[in-house]
Amino acid sequence: PNGRPTIQSEDGKYAFSIGLAFHEDFGGFIGVTPRGSEQKGKFNSFTSNARRLRVPLTWRYKDWVANVTPDYGGSNNDGVVGLYEANLNYAGLKNTILTVGYFQPRVTEEDSESSNDFEMMERPGITDIVRGIAAGDARFSVGGLHYEKRWWVAAYFTGQQFGGRNASGYYGGDGNVGDSQTGGMIRAAGRPVATRNWDLHLGISALSSIKPGDGTSGRTIKLSQRPEVNLGEDSLLSTGTITNVANVWAAGPEVGLRWRNLLLKGEYYHIGVDRARQNGGASMPTLGFQGWYAAANYTLFGKPRA
Amino acid sequence: PNGRPTIQSEDGKYAFSIGLAFHEDFGGFIGVTPRGSEQKGKFNSFTSNARRLRVPLTWRYKDWVANVTPDYGGSNNDGVVGLYEANLNYAGLKNTILTVGYFQPRVTEEDSESSNDFEMMERPGITDIVRGIAAGDARFSVGGLHYEKRWWVAAYFTGQQFGGRNASGYYGGDGNVGDSQTGGMIRAAGRPVATRNWDLHLGISALSSIKPGDGTSGRTIKLSQRPEVNLGEDSLLSTGTITNVANVWAAGPEVGLRWRNLLLKGEYYHIGVDRARQNGGASMPTLGFQGWYAAANYTLFGKPRA
Amino acid sequence: PNGRPTIQSEDGKYAFSIGLAFHEDFGGFIGVTPRGSEQKGKFNSFTSNARRLRVPLTWRYKDWVANVTPDYGGSNNDGVVGLYEANLNYAGLKNTILTVGYFQPRVTEEDSESSNDFEMMERPGITDIVRGIAAGDARFSVGGLHYEKRWWVAAYFTGQQFGGRNASGYYGGDGNVGDSQTGGMIRAAGRPVATRNWDLHLGISALSSIKPGDGTSGRTIKLSQRPEVNLGEDSLLSTGTITNVANVWAAGPEVGLRWRNLLLKGEYYHIGVDRARQNGGASMPTLGFQGWYAAANYTLFGKPRA
Repeated sequence: PNGRPTIQSEDGKYAFSIGLAFHEDFGGFIGVTPRGSEQKGKFNSFTSNARRLRVPLTWRYKDWVANVTPDYGGSNNDGVVGLYEANLNYAGLKNTILTVGYFQPRVTEEDSESSNDFEMMERPGITDIVRGIAAGDARFSVGGLHYEKRWWVAAYFTGQQFGGRNASGYYGGDGNVGDSQTGGMIRAAGRPVATRNWDLHLGISALSSIKPGDGTSGRTIKLSQRPEVNLGEDSLLSTGTITNVANVWAAGPEVGLRWRNLLLKGEYYHIGVDRARQNGGASMPTLGFQGWYAAANYTLFGKPRA
Repeated sequence: PNGRPTIQSEDGKYAFSIGLAFHEDFGGFIGVTPRGSEQKGKFNSFTSNARRLRVPLTWRYKDWVANVTPDYGGSNNDGVVGLYEANLNYAGLKNTILTVGYFQPRVTEEDSESSNDFEMMERPGITDIVRGIAAGDARFSVGGLHYEKRWWVAAYFTGQQFGGRNASGYYGGDGNVGDSQTGGMIRAAGRPVATRNWDLHLGISALSSIKPGDGTSGRTIKLSQRPEVNLGEDSLLSTGTITNVANVWAAGPEVGLRWRNLLLKGEYYHIGVDRARQNGGASMPTLGFQGWYAAANYTLFGKPRA
Repeated sequence: PNGRPTIQSEDGKYAFSIGLAFHEDFGGFIGVTPRGSEQKGKFNSFTSNARRLRVPLTWRYKDWVANVTPDYGGSNNDGVVGLYEANLNYAGLKNTILTVGYFQPRVTEEDSESSNDFEMMERPGITDIVRGIAAGDARFSVGGLHYEKRWWVAAYFTGQQFGGRNASGYYGGDGNVGDSQTGGMIRAAGRPVATRNWDLHLGISALSSIKPGDGTSGRTIKLSQRPEVNLGEDSLLSTGTITNVANVWAAGPEVGLRWRNLLLKGEYYHIGVDRARQNGGASMPTLGFQGWYAAANYTLFGKPRA
């Protein structure tokens, strides 16, 4: 499918295909000199990174589809082989796909686009932070999505990421986990206006880590983000590790508006971190974080995005 | 073969196939509360694990078959990519398959069944312990098997597991190995009675690590076993690390009996650990361990196992 | 291509193939006993190693070719899964191949031969050391090669190896790299004499790490080499880690001469290490190393090498 080499039985019941998604970043930071006695961060003047190097394998038998996608790239520093997804899907119900396994449940507008279609090189920071709470790549998921002509809804129960209990895992797990994360996500989006000159997209996403994983330092969470390029640089934004976390949730709206060749789009998310009582017994404050982005695009040549 | 997508040259001399074995565990331990001042072990109330996620690649050229099977799952905590097997086979002699490479030489009755066919979710503990001595997954093996209509015999010289000298290996090796393990295994099994109502299966397995690997703590062995489910739980049964090991062997019989829909089966193994003299010169005692299991099955519906 | 299972669209524009290169070493060092109070090095009396276990995947679309080759073997101690190459090539210009991505740019005569064609089991030590400076497997490369009937020239800009910034990378990277290596290589070779009885091969290679990677100990280099067999043995030849390195270069000629069934061949390389000023300000000496090998072969039976 989609130009991937495919072999198929003559009656069309069985099929196998193998594809390739290869995103290679190379470049550097020019003129990064620390002031006075400050230390220089890790900003390479030249380096390279296999951002994504995925070989999607797909087996289909009638309405059942199995996907296994090894990833030979790495988010920020390649070198270790991992897994982008491994799941089993049933597409036998009308306009519905049910999924179980390691999956990327799509939450927020930017996360719902394929990494091949981003307007910018990377996702906006807030989108990356939000999806990391209980969605993101290779998240253990059980759920489904249903679509009609103008709208779309998806809901998944989600657990740990692939390798969440393995300290040398591709996604950086914790070998001391005694109880894994449980959570879930839901997203609904629609296109109430869809004419020749105007398009309006509205949506809402919510997700929660009801019970974060219980690892080396108890139930913790850390929200952090690099600059929106992945060339080995330090993380510039971080909450530090928040301990004694009871649950984490995030929710927010997404809006997109097209008028002829002009495309405006924005998202806002609020993140709430509820905390358990400390051992001593004092109750701890609930923490709130928020983030947004807005983007404007004008297509000069060619067919604008729908 | 067996429903795997396969491409083949027109004269049938060359063939390539790609398959998938995906076993995903998810669940948890309910009501595990430590007594008084005891510490809670690692028993997740909910977690998931890609128990096996194997993509068998098979190249065939006339009587030669090469198998390479990456494994994206993990025995107890997934997250690292490894290898289940990589071997070269010659099937040109009648009823005989010769093998060299990383292989799972089949020892004991339960280990000889495919993991797709187990009666229970996992192998019996004694079987897992015995196969780990000088067989198991991705063991370097040179040998063969021969089968006739009613019986079967196999013998392999075996070395280290894949990655046995690599501390960050998938199977957890030791970077300080100065001399790798050498050993071997033999199994013979037959079906002296095979009638409509009665089936009798008899067999015997023996294997030995003649010279265990010489690693960080010299030649050692540790026999241990988790509960028979793989969800991140602690190991409840262990000999601790036995040092100054000269050799380890295990042997025992297997019996299976079917009468109509009733299937009885059992195995018993004795494990002997001979020890070398300590540096001081005192001779050390030989250690013995044993284990068995018995299982009874009654097939209510469908075709019983042969 | 070359006997690999291949599927191709009917018009020949699209093609996909999957191959296998499997080199398994097994054996040991016999009679290695340390003298007096010396310590025994790591010389296994018996062990095995998957030297190379590569599954080359090739996608072709018209003049564009993408290669991705996972490697399940390891140079000296297998057990971790890595990447041999992942690159994109354009072959639309006459007798020219342009390449970008992780690649093995061919430098020196012995490195230019496929590992399937070596005269000996491994490359000569000097060749392995020289290629490691700024070429070798899975090196980030941008460049091309051009060939005519009697000569060949190639030039590549090269960066870090795959995983150079990842401490748990397959090739052993450094997680503290703040600035990655930049360098390049060039090789020209030709066959001025090519008759029935005589063949003369002449060539020259040069490569440089203009700016070695800036890691945990600053910009350093270490030239070392094991015996020319890969069975877990210690490295017997090493410069130790050279610190404060400004740049490293190597260059030298290659000569091959065939007279009927007799083949002579040799290479010589000089390695120069220029060093930056120390913090204190004293200038440090430039270091020079050199190495060569010569080989003579006589083909008794069969067709000699061209």
